[in-house]
Order: sequence, then structure tokens, then C-alpha cells
Amino acid sequence: MKRLGDFLNMESFDLALLEEVWSEQDFQHLRQKLLPTYPAAHYFRSGIIGSGLCVFSKHPIQEFTQHVYTLNGYPYMIHHGDWFCGKAVGLLVLHLSGLVLNVYVTHLHAEYNRQKDIYLTHRVAQAWELAQFIQCVSLGLTGEVGWDQGLRGGQGPTYRRAELVREECLPHRPGSPSHTSKKADVVLLCGDLNLHPKDLGCRLLKEWTGLHDAYLETRDFKGSEEGCTMVPENCYVNQRELEPFPFGIRIDYVLYKAVSGFYISCKTLRTTTGHDPHSGSPLSDHEALMATLCVRHSPPQHTPSPTHGPEGSQLISVLKEAWRELDLGVAQARWWATFASYVIGLGLLLLAFLCALAAGGGVREVAILLWTPSVGLLLGAGAVYLFHMQEAKGLSGARAELQHVLGRAREAQDSGPESQPALLLGQQEGDGTEEQ
Amino acid sequence: MKRLGDFLNMESFDLALLEEVWSEQDFQHLRQKLLPTYPAAHYFRSGIIGSGLCVFSKHPIQEFTQHVYTLNGYPYMIHHGDWFCGKAVGLLVLHLSGLVLNVYVTHLHAEYNRQKDIYLTHRVAQAWELAQFIQCVSLGLTGEVGWDQGLRGGQGPTYRRAELVREECLPHRPGSPSHTSKKADVVLLCGDLNLHPKDLGCRLLKEWTGLHDAYLETRDFKGSEEGCTMVPENCYVNQRELEPFPFGIRIDYVLYKAVSGFYISCKTLRTTTGHDPHSGSPLSDHEALMATLCVRHSPPQHTPSPTHGPEGSQLISVLKEAWRELDLGVAQARWWATFASYVIGLGLLLLAFLCALAAGGGVREVAILLWTPSVGLLLGAGAVYLFHMQEAKGLSGARAELQHVLGRAREAQDSGPESQPALLLGQQEGDGTEEQ
Repeated sequence: MKRLGDFLNMESFDLALLEEVWSEQDFQHLRQKLLPTYPAAHYFRSGIIGSGLCVFSKHPIQEFTQHVYTLNGYPYMIHHGDWFCGKAVGLLVLHLSGLVLNVYVTHLHAEYNRQKDIYLTHRVAQAWELAQFIQCVSLGLTGEVGWDQGLRGGQGPTYRRAELVREECLPHRPGSPSHTSKKADVVLLCGDLNLHPKDLGCRLLKEWTGLHDAYLETRDFKGSEEGCTMVPENCYVNQRELEPFPFGIRIDYVLYKAVSGFYISCKTLRTTTGHDPHSGSPLSDHEALMATLCVRHSPPQHTPSPTHGPEGSQLISVLKEAWRELDLGVAQARWWATFASYVIGLGLLLLAFLCALAAGGGVREVAILLWTPSVGLLLGAGAVYLFHMQEAKGLSGARAELQHVLGRAREAQDSGPESQPALLLGQQEGDGTEEQ
Repeated sequence: MKRLGDFLNMESFDLALLEEVWSEQDFQHLRQKLLPTYPAAHYFRSGIIGSGLCVFSKHPIQEFTQHVYTLNGYPYMIHHGDWFCGKAVGLLVLHLSGLVLNVYVTHLHAEYNRQKDIYLTHRVAQAWELAQFIQCVSLGLTGEVGWDQGLRGGQGPTYRRAELVREECLPHRPGSPSHTSKKADVVLLCGDLNLHPKDLGCRLLKEWTGLHDAYLETRDFKGSEEGCTMVPENCYVNQRELEPFPFGIRIDYVLYKAVSGFYISCKTLRTTTGHDPHSGSPLSDHEALMATLCVRHSPPQHTPSPTHGPEGSQLISVLKEAWRELDLGVAQARWWATFASYVIGLGLLLLAFLCALAAGGGVREVAILLWTPSVGLLLGAGAVYLFHMQEAKGLSGARAELQHVLGRAREAQDSGPESQPALLLGQQEGDGTEEQ
């Protein structure tokens, strides 16, 4: 923490966004240390441990708020701990040289086993919730907005903690009153997404929000091979996990977008390369991302209707893929709830049997001794049942949103000039399609 | 459900927003029945039971999403059940005659005992989260927006379930492209807030969002005395709970706001009066609210800076009151967490003692018999500890948001032309004030 504070003070960024600051005391310590350079700061509190998200800014923070993800792993996976953090997305609103800048910082559920990833559905649901939150708050949830985006596929390799973002060259926009109800001019999303660039969640997020990836956009990148943010050179990284990826993985991102009338680009992007920028052991297990962004005025552009083009199909295809993943998740959550309800039934039978044994004498002591585990089994199964019921509701809520968006995308395609064949979802959507 | 369906079909509203539809089967039943009149529908899924929120619309729903409240009662208050519902706010975006309409439907935590309301803090936190969500999504979270609102105090009497809203006279707005990123033209919030008009949560919501109360605004009201939505005439209502309120209570609302350039008014407001509109037993324990709203073009108005006026002080005073309530809640949540940690310690000692007894023979059977309750105590206290830690985090997150907003309100007042004396929050804010 001491060295991280020194580093942030020395670099003097406009904005520093951190994840995995689990202790509020650590935040307070950093806050005191950084006060002269970064007068504004905020710690996003949620869950039992805390979201781990915090931010330090050279410029006043106008507003902030947060959205906690509905689904975030399983409470009984205590050794993974994600559930206890209450992972969230934090939003800051900054006014810079007359621009309204909405900055999002987030940390999605970790991936502990890429081959058999039990958290995949939750991460896809989180990516969707994140995309919807950004869309709602910054980009305008007005029905058509999904279709006027600069759509990009996730391509190229990989990145990751202590994202450091520097903004400059923000031009002054004269005469724009900032006290009227308006959307953001610039949207910035930074964070540890725990998603590789080609992963479903990452593609869904980019396609649905139209956010651009600084690593893929910039012409001036310096840092780790292929922009990786978790690299084998870092001594805190588990080398065995990175075996299939010789350069490392890119799972931390700086993503951005400007509304019509503005143009944003990434002038430079830097990462640390497995150790402290000035020698010594690294400041984190993830590499820091440092971006210099440039926002300029631009003439309002003609926005074509990409639903009818290849990008539209790309959006539809990623929406369909996400829908299928969530559908699978709903089925799985219901299976677990059903399984838990059978265990409850068995536990009740066992308890009744033990009571009868205890009353009848004989193996009384053994029967009484077994009460504790059987009551434990019953309570545990009850908790698992409730949890998975809630998981099924959460997933089917997200699935219904995707279903709706897909329906509208298909309508738009059908009514399009090329009149492409309707993209039907197939029978497996039966229980969702009846909904508007 | 059959009679509710008949009623909705016969009345043929533009939009019908329901709460407490706990069963998804009931929703599907209604959906089938209402399909010819209301082609669009959505059920908001969340929690274990479900949010109970659903909507039927004559017009296509462009987008929908939901936000589940961070705090919503206690899981161990099983007989109250609110925690299991995952109470939420649902958002629908409609395009009507060229207008973008954002409709919110919600249901806040119930009030079971007004004299000793253990859920007060949670309801205030929900009201704040609701206000922030509306502000973010529809009204523009751009720093200054808090101060350009038509501020109104909650005054006058009372209303309540199955809010039914009819919109008409929506003028066509020519040439406004709806596929660009923009905020809503009209914001509508309907729901069972479980708040009396003068309750802190209600005042906070109205002051912070600038939403207007249809009952207080309309010139043409017909229905129950003082607009009550829970009345003693209703046979499903607990008469004893309503004893202090001879006319009943007003806890269901239709609230609205239009952006500059539009003007919204409530032409007529109706409520049912304790029984089915056509005789017979009532359709719900709450009275239905039926509003006819009218949206017109209006010249953009000059917005004064109310922070310096009496309304600004009113906003500051309600923000301060809410801050204090949340601060109290944080202290209480921490007290419970500390208490639970002592119980955990005691439970561990007891368990060790029982193990020693069982090993030593003598009262072995009794010792083993007591294992089950002591392990139960331990697990229960552990759960209570975790829950209240999470409650404290959630409440202090909301408190930090209020703190920030208050700081900015004070700055605005201090720099105002009248230069009013600074409204300082006093010493009790110590642990929050150091934050930006």
C-alpha cells in the first residue's frame, strides 16, 4: 500500500481506479497519503467484505452511485469468497472542461477453472447487467439505441489491477449548460472483467454498449506482450494456471465511447510488465493499465442501421449465444433446487428415524449423536434450495431481457431492406418466447 | 385473478402496473386472458419468491430492466417474508406518439408496526436507491441536476394496489429521431411505496427526483376519502392496524415529471373505494389507482436555482434527516454484528465444554443431546453476523452518497447570492465527512 501510494503520487494521474482494495482501512490509508495529489476519492461499499472498488481523482467527483450484481457466485464456495464481496459496478460523474464524463469501475466474478468454469453463467449475467446499467445510465435506454452503435468484435489477444487512467486534451465546450438533464458525453469503463477478449461476456458487453477497447484502438502501446494484464513474469501469479497462455492473459480493460458530436481516442496505452515500474516486486498480481485518452469535437456522424449489416448479425449472434448460456444456467439452477428439495425430504425422514431410535432405547446414544449432522444436513439443504431458487429467478430475469432484445433485433432485420431470413431461436426458447 | 382480468379487459387502460403478483402462474394466467387488449406484458423476476411486479401494456414495450434493492428486511423474519421477495424497481421504456416515456413500477418494504418500525431505515435506503436509479436513468446524473427540480413538499393526506394508469392526449412530436441517445421526455413512477405522504422516504424521493404527486396535482379526483389506498371499508384490511387513521392511509402513488419542453398534468384520478368497482368483494386489499395523464408541449422554462431559496433548504433538510436515519441504521447494524460475534464466541465455548463432558463420561447423553442446539446457535449467530455486516456496508454506502450530495448542496448554498449560513452537519458525521 505504501509503494502503491508512492507510485500513484509520483505518476499524478487524472484518475486512478483500483480493484481488490478489500480493506477499508487500506483505502483510508491511501486516501490520506494521496490527498494532496488526488483531492477526491470514494470507496464503494457492498456485500460483507466490500466490493473492493475505489477511486482517486484529481478532479471533483460530481456524483457517484453503485449497482450490485444480482448474481455473484455461491455462498457455500467459501474458499473462493467472491459471493462475500458483493461485486458491483461503481459510477462516477466528472465534469472536465465542460464535458460530462461517466466513469464506470467494476470487477466481475473470478474464473477459477477455465476448463470447467462453474461461474461462467454468472459472469455472463454480470456482463449483461453491466452492459444494461451502462446503457440505461449513460447511453439512453430508448429502444433503438442498441442498433446505432459502432459495433466491434472482440479480437486480438489479452490484459489486468490498479487501472490508471489519464485523461488530457479535453477541449472546452463553450456555452453548454451542465445543469439540464442530459446523458454523458463520454463513457469510460475500466476494470478487471475476468474475461478474455473473445469470451462471450466480453463480446456481449462490447456489442451491446458499443464500447471500444483501448488496447485494440491505440497506435501507441508499450508494455507486456499482447497487452496481457496477468503475466507469467509476475511473481504473485500462479504459473501453472497460465501454462496454456505463454504470454499471459488479457482480462483487465479500458473501454470507452463518445456520443455523437465527440470523438474519443486512446493516444497511448502502457502496462507494467510483471514488476514494479521502477524495479522490485510488483505492486499487484495484475499489471497496471495506464491510458492517455483524447476527446475532440467532431461533426455529428450519419449512423447507418447496422442491424441489417454484418455487425447487426454479429450482435444477434452474440445475444443468442448469451441467451443459450443463461438458459442452461436456469436449467442448472432449477436442477440444484430440485436436488436440494430431495435432500430436505431425506433429511426429514432420517431425523424422524433417529427420533424413533432414541425413543426406543437400544442404540440411543448413537441416534442422539447423529442428530447434529442430520439437522445440519437439513438446514444446509434448505439454504441451498433457497439460494438456487433465487439464482434461477435472477438468471431467468436476465434471460427475459435478452429474449426481448433479440425479438426486437429480429423484427428490425425482417423489416430491413435486405430482408434477411428471420433468425429464429428454435424450440428451446419455448418458455420464454410467449413474453413480450 | 379471473375477476381482475375481466376488470382490466373491460377498462382497457393504456398501461396497467401490478404489485404483489407473487405467483408467476398467476401472471401467465392473466397474460393469456389479457393478450387481446394488452399485447405486451412483462413479469419482473427476482429474489426467491419473485418481486411481485408485473406490467400489461397496450403499446409495445421498447426496453425493460430492473434494479433489485440492496437492503430489503431480514431473512430471519420469515413471517414477514419481504426479504424472500427480492423487492425491486422495474423500468419500462415506451414510445408513445413520438414521446419517450420511462415508467417505473416498485414495491417497497412493508411497514408492520408504525410505532416501532424496525424496517424504517431499510425503507429510507430503498427510497434513496429508487430516487438515485430514476435520477441516473431518466433524469441525468450530471452533478447539477439535483438543483433544477420543481421541488415540492409532501403535504395533504393519503392513497393504494393494482395501479392503473391511462395516458392520452400525447401530442406528436415531429422530426424527433428516437434512435439517438437521449433521456426520457416523461417519467412515471407508480407503486406501493408503503410510505405515508409525510414520511421521510416519501419526502426524500420527491425532493430528490422532483416527481409530482398525481393526487396533490389533479383537479378532478374521485374515490376514497383523502385519496386513501388502504381503507377500513376494504374487507381484506386489518381494521385494528387502521385504528389511528379513520379514513385509511395513502401509501400507493402515481408520481410523474416531464423534462423541459414538455408539460405533464393529471386530468383525472380515480380510486376504488373498498369494493369491486361493480359491487362485490374487492379485487385487492389495496385500492386501485386510475389516472388519466396529459402531456403537452411547452416552451422551455427558465429554471431558477432553488438551492438558494426555501426549496433548496427543504431539500437539504430532508437529505440531512435521511442521513441521520441511515447513520442510526449503520450503528444498529454494527451493534447486531458485534452482538452476534459475542454469541459465536459463547457458542464455541459451550461446544468445547460439551465435548469435554461427553468425553469424560458422566452426563454424556445430556452433553451429546445439547450438541444440536449449540451447533445451531453457532451457525445461526454466524449467519446473523454476516447478514448485519452486509447491512452495515449497504447502509454506509447509501450514507456516503447522501453525504456527498449534502456537501455539494452546502457548497451551492455557501456560494449563493444570499450567502446563507453554512448548514453544517455536526459532529456525528465524523466518520463520513472525510470522504469526498
